[in-house]
Amino acid sequence: MIDRSHGGNIWQYPKSLRRAVIDFSVNTNPLGMAKKIKNSIVQNVDKINYYPDPESKYLKNSLAKFHRLSSHNFLIGNGSIELIHLIPRALEAKVVLIPIPTFSEYEFAVKSNNAKCLFVKSTEKNNFKIDISRLMQHIPKADLVFLCNPNNPTGFALERQEILLLLKACKKYNVTLVIDEAFMDFVAPENRITMVVESAKSKHLLVLRSLTKFFVVPGIRIGYVIGHKDTINKLSQHTYPWNVNAMAQAIAEEAIDDKQYIARTQNIIPKERAYLYENLNKIRGVRVYPSDANFLFCKLKGAEIKNAAELSRKLIRQGILIRRCHNFRGLNDRFFRIAVKNREANIKLISALRTVLE
Amino acid sequence: MIDRSHGGNIWQYPKSLRRAVIDFSVNTNPLGMAKKIKNSIVQNVDKINYYPDPESKYLKNSLAKFHRLSSHNFLIGNGSIELIHLIPRALEAKVVLIPIPTFSEYEFAVKSNNAKCLFVKSTEKNNFKIDISRLMQHIPKADLVFLCNPNNPTGFALERQEILLLLKACKKYNVTLVIDEAFMDFVAPENRITMVVESAKSKHLLVLRSLTKFFVVPGIRIGYVIGHKDTINKLSQHTYPWNVNAMAQAIAEEAIDDKQYIARTQNIIPKERAYLYENLNKIRGVRVYPSDANFLFCKLKGAEIKNAAELSRKLIRQGILIRRCHNFRGLNDRFFRIAVKNREANIKLISALRTVLE
Repeated sequence: MIDRSHGGNIWQYPKSLRRAVIDFSVNTNPLGMAKKIKNSIVQNVDKINYYPDPESKYLKNSLAKFHRLSSHNFLIGNGSIELIHLIPRALEAKVVLIPIPTFSEYEFAVKSNNAKCLFVKSTEKNNFKIDISRLMQHIPKADLVFLCNPNNPTGFALERQEILLLLKACKKYNVTLVIDEAFMDFVAPENRITMVVESAKSKHLLVLRSLTKFFVVPGIRIGYVIGHKDTINKLSQHTYPWNVNAMAQAIAEEAIDDKQYIARTQNIIPKERAYLYENLNKIRGVRVYPSDANFLFCKLKGAEIKNAAELSRKLIRQGILIRRCHNFRGLNDRFFRIAVKNREANIKLISALRTVLE
Repeated sequence: MIDRSHGGNIWQYPKSLRRAVIDFSVNTNPLGMAKKIKNSIVQNVDKINYYPDPESKYLKNSLAKFHRLSSHNFLIGNGSIELIHLIPRALEAKVVLIPIPTFSEYEFAVKSNNAKCLFVKSTEKNNFKIDISRLMQHIPKADLVFLCNPNNPTGFALERQEILLLLKACKKYNVTLVIDEAFMDFVAPENRITMVVESAKSKHLLVLRSLTKFFVVPGIRIGYVIGHKDTINKLSQHTYPWNVNAMAQAIAEEAIDDKQYIARTQNIIPKERAYLYENLNKIRGVRVYPSDANFLFCKLKGAEIKNAAELSRKLIRQGILIRRCHNFRGLNDRFFRIAVKNREANIKLISALRTVLE
């Protein structure tokens, strides 16, 4: 039985526990959902009585304005995960290149389509940083590449030069490069190398975007893919009407308009990430990896705690949920991932980890 | 360019018009969304901040209780339309039998999967009633059959004997029969021949159910399929996590529990359908077909009005939207469909039709 569990699945716990814990297993914005969005939901309840705009045309127009592209460059999904499953199917990819460890749904998407995965493993020695030159050697054998940037669960963001090299190879061998930028908006400006603009121009590039994590709306399902209009058109033929619900459409319009919330988030995350990194680094028994994202990838050192399963059990008793990384291909149960939260929560995490590990 | 438009697409009209019209093009419950559901949405806004129960386990349990089956007999979809697109793909159907005219998404689902449709046309002479014996002749050539019962847009419900005959033939030739019961709950008890119980027992039968129309929640996307646990398991492998949003899950739980609303609806629909049928029948220029569903299928008689496009334009000026049936395969623009609404709205429709047609 494959363990397809993800972070943020509070439903596996009893109700009483759900309310008592801080969930560091889920990578959402520590600011919580903006008041504006919450209000817009209550105001838009009646939208549920009507079919959604069937192809999300209004939302595409708003996103086009937001990204300064054309609405033809967008396809909206029932969460970006719908698009992750749709892309290899629509493009009829037979062999898909996936650097690991990474988000596990790329693999499931490929396999549910009877296609083959080609995994390129990043090494612990190299801090799990994706080795672009090794990845490029395998491009000629692939039809598609899934690249998560910054990568989940390791947190590293790629440099512009690395991405451009990869894209060049993809063009040469007629391979589609899919960059999942689900966590890009959390990256500090100097490292925030988004390929959104390039994707609209290149038939070999698609960029996945999610509103889930940044705007804390995982429950309503909204994500999108940006690409050349011909590729988007091809993908669109494999979707179905009303795949995006009316509430998600309304929330998305509200969210991308909330410049103040976006700025506040982008201000707080680098600070809290640095704070958490620094303090985790001081804890005996934990190795923490550098990260550009809103989460930190960690490894258990020493033998006091057998594995992340044990750590996780002990932390739950302290009111803390973490994401064990045992079911990421290429990792084992010594690894875990924690989200960057607000200062108050981060202090609690540090304190709980100290209690358990020292 | 294929016209994939459906009824209920108010987004194609300017905002001012949207508010001023009664939408007879959409087949939702004229009672409107229950207050209980509306309240539950407002109370459950915070659910949006958490990932949904990834495989809708809680909702499956509730549906199992509601239908007196096991939770293993259920797969929940992002609207039943997601499941319509998923079923032929997951079952790798190569040839799909579709009696027409019917809901057009069956055809699109088959084609987006590069499979072949085998259409069996119901004749006007036979009131567009599905000819089961003709349909059965084609079973040996098919892998799958899509059957809408009662049928959209014609409104006819099949008899138990007809369905059982068809199912027997499907078993004999190892064909999967998919019965879409999206409108079944609107049918009067004496003709309400649901195959829900049978579907849980047979590997050759799947029943699609939607909460959209009955509970007036098309904006939030929720539907499900019932079948043998082995078939459901096969289908599940082709879905992705969190395909059903948290608000839809909460609404569905609330909806199936609202026995009073269900009873009120099932009381009002047969009465209003009869009222509307009787009065439409009196209008010169319209032929109305008998219906078991919450909508009536009609044809323009005479030459005063060229086609349903013209009728539609004239009715919009009277504040009435109807569903033209020009883009149902097997029909032309002499046909249209109208939903059964409440008495006040039905009177307005009759009056508007009289003004335009007499």
